[in-house]
Amino acid sequence: MNEFDFIRQLREQARARNFSSRLITGIGDDAAVVRESGNRDLVISTDLLIEEIDFHRETTPAHLLGHRALAVSLSDIAAMGARPLWALISFGLPGSTWDSDFKEQFFAGYLALADRYGVTLAGGDISKSQQIVIDSIVAGEVKTGRAVLRSTAQPGDQIFVTGSLGGAAAGLKLIELGARVGADSSRQEADGRGQSDDETSDDHAIQFLLLRQLAPQPRVGWGMVLGEEQLATSMIDISDGLSSDLRHLCAESNVGATIDASSLPLDENVKQLCGRRALDPLALALHGGEDFELLFTVSPERLSPLPQRVDGVGISQIGEVTEQGGGVRLREKNREWNLEAKGFTHFGK
Amino acid sequence: MNEFDFIRQLREQARARNFSSRLITGIGDDAAVVRESGNRDLVISTDLLIEEIDFHRETTPAHLLGHRALAVSLSDIAAMGARPLWALISFGLPGSTWDSDFKEQFFAGYLALADRYGVTLAGGDISKSQQIVIDSIVAGEVKTGRAVLRSTAQPGDQIFVTGSLGGAAAGLKLIELGARVGADSSRQEADGRGQSDDETSDDHAIQFLLLRQLAPQPRVGWGMVLGEEQLATSMIDISDGLSSDLRHLCAESNVGATIDASSLPLDENVKQLCGRRALDPLALALHGGEDFELLFTVSPERLSPLPQRVDGVGISQIGEVTEQGGGVRLREKNREWNLEAKGFTHFGK
Repeated sequence: MNEFDFIRQLREQARARNFSSRLITGIGDDAAVVRESGNRDLVISTDLLIEEIDFHRETTPAHLLGHRALAVSLSDIAAMGARPLWALISFGLPGSTWDSDFKEQFFAGYLALADRYGVTLAGGDISKSQQIVIDSIVAGEVKTGRAVLRSTAQPGDQIFVTGSLGGAAAGLKLIELGARVGADSSRQEADGRGQSDDETSDDHAIQFLLLRQLAPQPRVGWGMVLGEEQLATSMIDISDGLSSDLRHLCAESNVGATIDASSLPLDENVKQLCGRRALDPLALALHGGEDFELLFTVSPERLSPLPQRVDGVGISQIGEVTEQGGGVRLREKNREWNLEAKGFTHFGK
Repeated sequence: MNEFDFIRQLREQARARNFSSRLITGIGDDAAVVRESGNRDLVISTDLLIEEIDFHRETTPAHLLGHRALAVSLSDIAAMGARPLWALISFGLPGSTWDSDFKEQFFAGYLALADRYGVTLAGGDISKSQQIVIDSIVAGEVKTGRAVLRSTAQPGDQIFVTGSLGGAAAGLKLIELGARVGADSSRQEADGRGQSDDETSDDHAIQFLLLRQLAPQPRVGWGMVLGEEQLATSMIDISDGLSSDLRHLCAESNVGATIDASSLPLDENVKQLCGRRALDPLALALHGGEDFELLFTVSPERLSPLPQRVDGVGISQIGEVTEQGGGVRLREKNREWNLEAKGFTHFGK
């Protein structure tokens, strides 16, 4: 049993004993939705980040980890079409880490991102641990009934994705190959010798991809526009990988989907580096996780009011929602096949 | 710098950039309070439980750990005078634990306690980890402005505590001495030979104390009564130990306090066992943590409507709030001295 099966089982148990008529949706979406008095629903998400599983200390500067901890939860709130409001953080640190400047660096990164979106840190908990453990909790709000769920896509809806895909997974591969954030650019400045344009350009691409992995940019603006203007029929953020997250969305909505390989917004930096570094842009875009882009569906009649860009980030139309029997398919040139979920799971298949 | 100093520092940073006019109180109380539309404030708490720090697998049955994870957060909500509503849980498990029945047992205990108080499990997160990591998040509500804070005690207020003190810390000592929950009673049934009344009675006391430690009972009913009927001027739950938690309350309220040693509700089971097991009932009551009783203050004019018992749990009047200059004092017979905070800290003094 993988975690998704267990979550489904737990959801059934929780639903069977749902005491609160105010719970709109709970386990199984990017965030829980709770009806508040007034004309608002509260949207709330938690994300656990654990050292050696979700990040490695030696490759992750503490301020970027602080940014990342908040970013992944902001992405969940965006995926519900909600406006983020306040946050809590639970924090487990080894004694030796406590005595370093790790926590100050971490919160500098965390609060800088919170500032950007006007999110207030409202509380949390601190404990001792053997590994660094961070649980990031963010709450946001939507007008009553406006939360965008995973479960409401309809056949005929068009499928979109924000930004580009595959960069974060490429960044992870580069880290595994020994690349470090800031290392290339500092070397470049330090030795001062002329580099070829290609080398400089590659260095920039590598740094960009490392930051895609280490400091993801949540699509908060897009989430709010899609939710407030009721443009999306369903939405999920791409954390496990497009192939897996699209399957989650289709399973929750009881629909199928067909994706056009040629429409996928492959990361330009991955394309630039792919020849020399064994990176496959299409595979990374399909199965690489942690891009934290938004995957959403739009009904045909709502296509025209859809903006081209929000906060400088564009979107790509990548496919169409089909009937459930259609499965999740990938079209490449004139061929079509099942798109297997090869994204991330913690506990196997 | 211990965690309380760091939390104070972080609170200043967060307050300086408080974007939400709706945040009533945040970092530094048992829970954050956020103003919702309508006539309700949302109260929300997080508690991180980490294996080998907050519990040990071999001495903590999984279903009791599930109970405990929810209980500690329910206690925070009670300490705000709030009614618990819904919960989230973040859950990190080692792969080998995932494959056992740990998670099913854990959630059986968790959901049984949730049932008792009508709390809905609304969502959460699951991750892999090396140690078991649990972040328990519970939200509750109060009428607007009715949350009972730590910071609002006044000189002249009387100090009360629910239930009894020292049992959980005694339970922890018994575990360290090798006692195990259920072991004594099953031995008793198994060998069938006559035991002296003393032995039987000691076994019962030991089992009671183990459960005080492993399966604390949050004072949800008392919290709601004290909050809804505006009986308490300030409140905190006893998680770190009376001496530490009273100091937290006094520091936040800028007051002093004097406690009468003879009024402290020492746990009867600790008193019974103390002669034979090197347990000091008064020291455990003053400094032993994790009883999850409520420590609260009542102004003289609100003493008469105070109920004697709620849900079968009584209260004890243990002292009085004094001016700030008075310090935190313990009176024993005709002597009086400073009550040092000897409760729990994660990161030293």
